[in-house]
Amino acid sequence: MKLSELGEFGLINILSKIVEDSRDPQSPQWKNMVAGIGDDAAAWKNKRGLTLATTDCLVENIHFKPGQSSWRDLGWKALAVNLSDIAAMGGKAGYALVTIGLPREAEVESIIDLYEGIIELGNMWGVAIAGGDITSSEKFIISLTVTGNSGKHLLRRSSARPGDIIAVTGNPGMAAAGYKLIEDGIEETETDAPLRQAFLRPSPRLAEGIAICASGSRTAIDISDGLVADLGHICNSSGTGARINTDLIPVHPTARKIFPDQALDMALGGGEDYELLFTAEAQVIEKVKRTTSTRVTVIGEVTTGPAGVVNVIDENGRPYRVEKAGWDHFGK
Amino acid sequence: MKLSELGEFGLINILSKIVEDSRDPQSPQWKNMVAGIGDDAAAWKNKRGLTLATTDCLVENIHFKPGQSSWRDLGWKALAVNLSDIAAMGGKAGYALVTIGLPREAEVESIIDLYEGIIELGNMWGVAIAGGDITSSEKFIISLTVTGNSGKHLLRRSSARPGDIIAVTGNPGMAAAGYKLIEDGIEETETDAPLRQAFLRPSPRLAEGIAICASGSRTAIDISDGLVADLGHICNSSGTGARINTDLIPVHPTARKIFPDQALDMALGGGEDYELLFTAEAQVIEKVKRTTSTRVTVIGEVTTGPAGVVNVIDENGRPYRVEKAGWDHFGK
Repeated sequence: MKLSELGEFGLINILSKIVEDSRDPQSPQWKNMVAGIGDDAAAWKNKRGLTLATTDCLVENIHFKPGQSSWRDLGWKALAVNLSDIAAMGGKAGYALVTIGLPREAEVESIIDLYEGIIELGNMWGVAIAGGDITSSEKFIISLTVTGNSGKHLLRRSSARPGDIIAVTGNPGMAAAGYKLIEDGIEETETDAPLRQAFLRPSPRLAEGIAICASGSRTAIDISDGLVADLGHICNSSGTGARINTDLIPVHPTARKIFPDQALDMALGGGEDYELLFTAEAQVIEKVKRTTSTRVTVIGEVTTGPAGVVNVIDENGRPYRVEKAGWDHFGK
Repeated sequence: MKLSELGEFGLINILSKIVEDSRDPQSPQWKNMVAGIGDDAAAWKNKRGLTLATTDCLVENIHFKPGQSSWRDLGWKALAVNLSDIAAMGGKAGYALVTIGLPREAEVESIIDLYEGIIELGNMWGVAIAGGDITSSEKFIISLTVTGNSGKHLLRRSSARPGDIIAVTGNPGMAAAGYKLIEDGIEETETDAPLRQAFLRPSPRLAEGIAICASGSRTAIDISDGLVADLGHICNSSGTGARINTDLIPVHPTARKIFPDQALDMALGGGEDYELLFTAEAQVIEKVKRTTSTRVTVIGEVTTGPAGVVNVIDENGRPYRVEKAGWDHFGK
């Protein structure tokens, strides 16, 4: 079977099962594993708590087009998407390994800029660049692995319970709006700069992830695949359903102004947002709101099912159909 | 400047310096770092000893050609090259993160075979596959990150001292000989199978790395770039020179038989060998020989200098010129 017929998530399911079936119960590594394939980051026990590790790869023409963002921004983003995975587990960031694949005709200055973008964001979170690999490649590849750590608690995808309140940080859809402004070649203004920044230099929600976990929530995901798709991942992993209301979605006012007909769909299905979606009892959500200055908005509720199904309800109480919910790399 | 003018090692030097200059002395991560860019793996202190991490990337048409090796062998090798880096630090293997970039028209069966190769070798060393990333890509990409751990001692590139004896495990040049048999399309025989295996399914020298470190050596590298080139890396990092003798090099008898005129150059410059080259006082080398059943051969001595220079001496005491010593990805 071709990969394009199976799709990305079909492949992940098959590979997860192969890995799961191969577990060696005698191996201390397997014994200490807490979260494996299928969460934002892997987690295993160490002497003090949990070690986290995640890896995310950006490939030229798939994840970025040279010229659409600066090399410095691209370096920043390559680290940010990994830090966001650590944030979605409720962890602190640790070390980064940087793998780059480079065409022979690449400009050395571009690669230095790329590294400086990684370092700029890394220094904001105490991340040390510990090593990596450099290889030649026809297309640019930027693949980072980032470690982290946490105490004994984690934010998982699999721990949502019916009745949990669903909340989200920030304004989903900003990155999709920013991407459209850039893709359409629209001249930058002071007003739309935050949208572009959300796409080019996303801020990983590390402090918020720690606050969410410390407040008592045990369920989160980052919404890099899009809010509805990622809520679907939580529902699939938890065996629950979910209901969210379009009139509760905190669409950014500038996105709504520039894209009045698309801003809601961008927020629900746009992807590339690095906000955190999390679930918890109402009083936990209130505690999170008190302990972070970042906007936190309640958007719906976890339901008993059907498992994996996210119901999006419009302001008239009718089902709302989201345009482009989620992203499959192999375009099933 | 174009990358092809600067070369791979010039780029690594520039990036290492940028990273070094950006160290945040307040960050606990930077404080705990023991080995960063420029060794086989990174190492940082944890509560019990040292955490190791390494990453290595195989790209289609650069590191492998589909059809030349099976997908299962390719999976094995992708993990082996990373485990070899852990071995070269004297560590035990821990967890693996697997990133794969796949064309849409890839066969699902191939990807399953690839994973099974990773798992087959992983299970030999207790390595748990903890996660990864799957992305679309025009060419196949297989990038693994592997963690490990060690006690307080490590094998480094920078700790060789003049007067140290230089030794190597196994038979360098087997992989280059095996590669030539495959590349030339020569039909496999029972005799030449070990050469092909050395190229297709290299055995990481994890047990030997631990034995070398436990015996009291503090200096090793794997010879994936080729024996002379990697000895040069040790000399550069340690500020020493080295002298090795061609008549001491343990060329594999089958390689010598099939390639009488090339086998020595394959052993000195061939690359893709995952043997360990290490240095220590004579009595430490003897101890290593007693504690491992793998062949260990003395091939020369560390000298005062010139720094970074490896003198290869033939059986008549004359300088020997190695064909193709080392590999630069950007073909400076």
